[in-house]
Amino acid sequence: MKKVIIFGSSGSIGKNALDVIRKSKNNFKVIGLCVYKDVETLFAQAKEFLPENVCIVDKTHFHKIKDLPKKIKVFMGKDGLNDFSKISSDISVMAIAGLSCLEPFLHHIPYTKRIALANKESIVTASRFVFKEAKKYNVEIFPIDSEINAIFQFFSLDKKILKNNLNKVYITASGGSLLNYRKKNLTSVKIKDVLSHPTWKMGKRITVDCATLVNKGFEVIEVHNFFGIPYEKIDVLIHRQSQVHALLELKDKTIIACLYPADMRIPISYALHYPERFYNNDGMDFKNKICFSFEPISFKKFPLLKLILEAAKREDNSLVILNACDEISIEYFLKKKIKFIHIYKALEYMFSIYPSTRLKTIEDVFYWDNWAREKTKEYLDRV
Amino acid sequence: MKKVIIFGSSGSIGKNALDVIRKSKNNFKVIGLCVYKDVETLFAQAKEFLPENVCIVDKTHFHKIKDLPKKIKVFMGKDGLNDFSKISSDISVMAIAGLSCLEPFLHHIPYTKRIALANKESIVTASRFVFKEAKKYNVEIFPIDSEINAIFQFFSLDKKILKNNLNKVYITASGGSLLNYRKKNLTSVKIKDVLSHPTWKMGKRITVDCATLVNKGFEVIEVHNFFGIPYEKIDVLIHRQSQVHALLELKDKTIIACLYPADMRIPISYALHYPERFYNNDGMDFKNKICFSFEPISFKKFPLLKLILEAAKREDNSLVILNACDEISIEYFLKKKIKFIHIYKALEYMFSIYPSTRLKTIEDVFYWDNWAREKTKEYLDRV
Repeated sequence: MKKVIIFGSSGSIGKNALDVIRKSKNNFKVIGLCVYKDVETLFAQAKEFLPENVCIVDKTHFHKIKDLPKKIKVFMGKDGLNDFSKISSDISVMAIAGLSCLEPFLHHIPYTKRIALANKESIVTASRFVFKEAKKYNVEIFPIDSEINAIFQFFSLDKKILKNNLNKVYITASGGSLLNYRKKNLTSVKIKDVLSHPTWKMGKRITVDCATLVNKGFEVIEVHNFFGIPYEKIDVLIHRQSQVHALLELKDKTIIACLYPADMRIPISYALHYPERFYNNDGMDFKNKICFSFEPISFKKFPLLKLILEAAKREDNSLVILNACDEISIEYFLKKKIKFIHIYKALEYMFSIYPSTRLKTIEDVFYWDNWAREKTKEYLDRV
Repeated sequence: MKKVIIFGSSGSIGKNALDVIRKSKNNFKVIGLCVYKDVETLFAQAKEFLPENVCIVDKTHFHKIKDLPKKIKVFMGKDGLNDFSKISSDISVMAIAGLSCLEPFLHHIPYTKRIALANKESIVTASRFVFKEAKKYNVEIFPIDSEINAIFQFFSLDKKILKNNLNKVYITASGGSLLNYRKKNLTSVKIKDVLSHPTWKMGKRITVDCATLVNKGFEVIEVHNFFGIPYEKIDVLIHRQSQVHALLELKDKTIIACLYPADMRIPISYALHYPERFYNNDGMDFKNKICFSFEPISFKKFPLLKLILEAAKREDNSLVILNACDEISIEYFLKKKIKFIHIYKALEYMFSIYPSTRLKTIEDVFYWDNWAREKTKEYLDRV
């Protein structure tokens, strides 16, 4: 039985990961669960999975811990998270949202053998540092994100042949909730419209990122960093049905594609069971007619995707800046402090004013993250 | 430079194979070309590729050989084909149509290192004998057929992992020229309607076989015999666009699919260049919207597919019978001697009257092939 810790167990990925474990009980033992503040969910999960350890990061919820099953060790606050990160596991699921995942992720690397990574921000802002640590401690980092996981699945077959013959990698994008909106209507778009994703049920922030395609920009960066594929070989296709996740075009133009229903438990299960495959689901329904469409993406329609990809190629601190700005802007939008269009404006503004510099240490990442959060708040408080 | 012989160079596959070689001149030297009777095409090819040997099987065309470039050795008639088959090559393309491919194929196995096989009939009727010979002489047999080639491409990556995790193989069928016909209209269907394939340009016989889906039944048998996949794990999907050729569903319901434009030069090129990939083409056009559809297949609409698959499971002489009957019936249909619906009736009739017996030797294959041809002619001459 493999010991598993889940960082971010109350979120969408955390819940799906626990469902995979629930259906594969003989293979895994949950030994740690960590949430930011959703203690109700944590308690229900703790009662079912009886982990030895739980962690609650937000101090305002500490008073409720009396409801937890006894014998469970409770870690609290940021210091608690620090200690919780030093618990040894066989596999850990990293599903804390946003850049706040980066610190516990880095702390935890020496204490595990495999990390199933859902968090994109740590790769987008700090992949160099993350992969260096992973290499140092011989830790596997497997992507959970469906598009990246699809490529990982291919490369698990024969990375050398596929990389040597690679012409292009396509990752797909549903186009999110606003694909059919005109740009001029984006000023008036409502929160509930933005959060109506056509195919995936996910957390709020990522759903907003899917509407702006910032999320897809992050995934292109993940593909680049996970597999060492140059940016000019990575392309995005609009695929409204979210069933084909990635396509590899080889030198002779043969394409191999990875398909599965829009169910995150499939890539999570692969990352947990690898090299085995186990997840009991209905699969693709070929008993009825299925249609897939693929369309080129319009940078005009999705200027933030273009912005993110431009930033990626700079190899400076710009991705840290843009990620921080995006996190803050979405927080403001979801709190109804700004309009949807201000997310675009904030990112464009920050990209125009940030002082470009190389990230030399991990401290630089945190410094520029902080800097950009403050600057974004100043900007958004003005608009 | 690899020495290449093409058996059936005047047909669709033969011409495509020569075009692949034309575009990859530094890798291949054509040393032999063989046709049944299309000497005009052979002479043009011989002038361009200057092979050391050519073969013309049909004796009625011998008088024209004076038009051939000198120094080219000419083999003639069935005995000539026998001798031509004993010329040594590095790679040979087997693209003779129908069961008449089987004899030269078997004769040639000891004299080559790799056979790029387009002929289905030899696998459908005699796979056991063919693969035994290939094993004995350590000869690679690579399928050219797009669906089988797609699976071959996957298994080239990691056959063991894929086979161990295989849940289902889907091969696709365009549905042929008559997909949208009602069964009652099949009596009145014309030759030109049957020969109007929606996506592939191929020879006449295979185009008719695509309309009845006999061809798809043969491909299921090829998948079974090439890769040792049980029949219950092989399924057919209607995919009108002929761009996705095969899909492998793994244990966790993840599907990997192989896509390329409906251009036979892609699989031919892979079979010739393997393990390298080289074929200069435009590839899939993602600059415009592409739609793919997949539908289950109706055995009611395609009773001959059902018949072929039933025959396949019998493991007796029935596939030899049905193939012979199909070849004769199509010949009669294309000569306007019978109506299209009589192809169905002939196969159903032969399947109901043939004496079931195991094929113990390759001679049994030829015996039952002859028997069925005669019986089919008797039947068709009556209707």
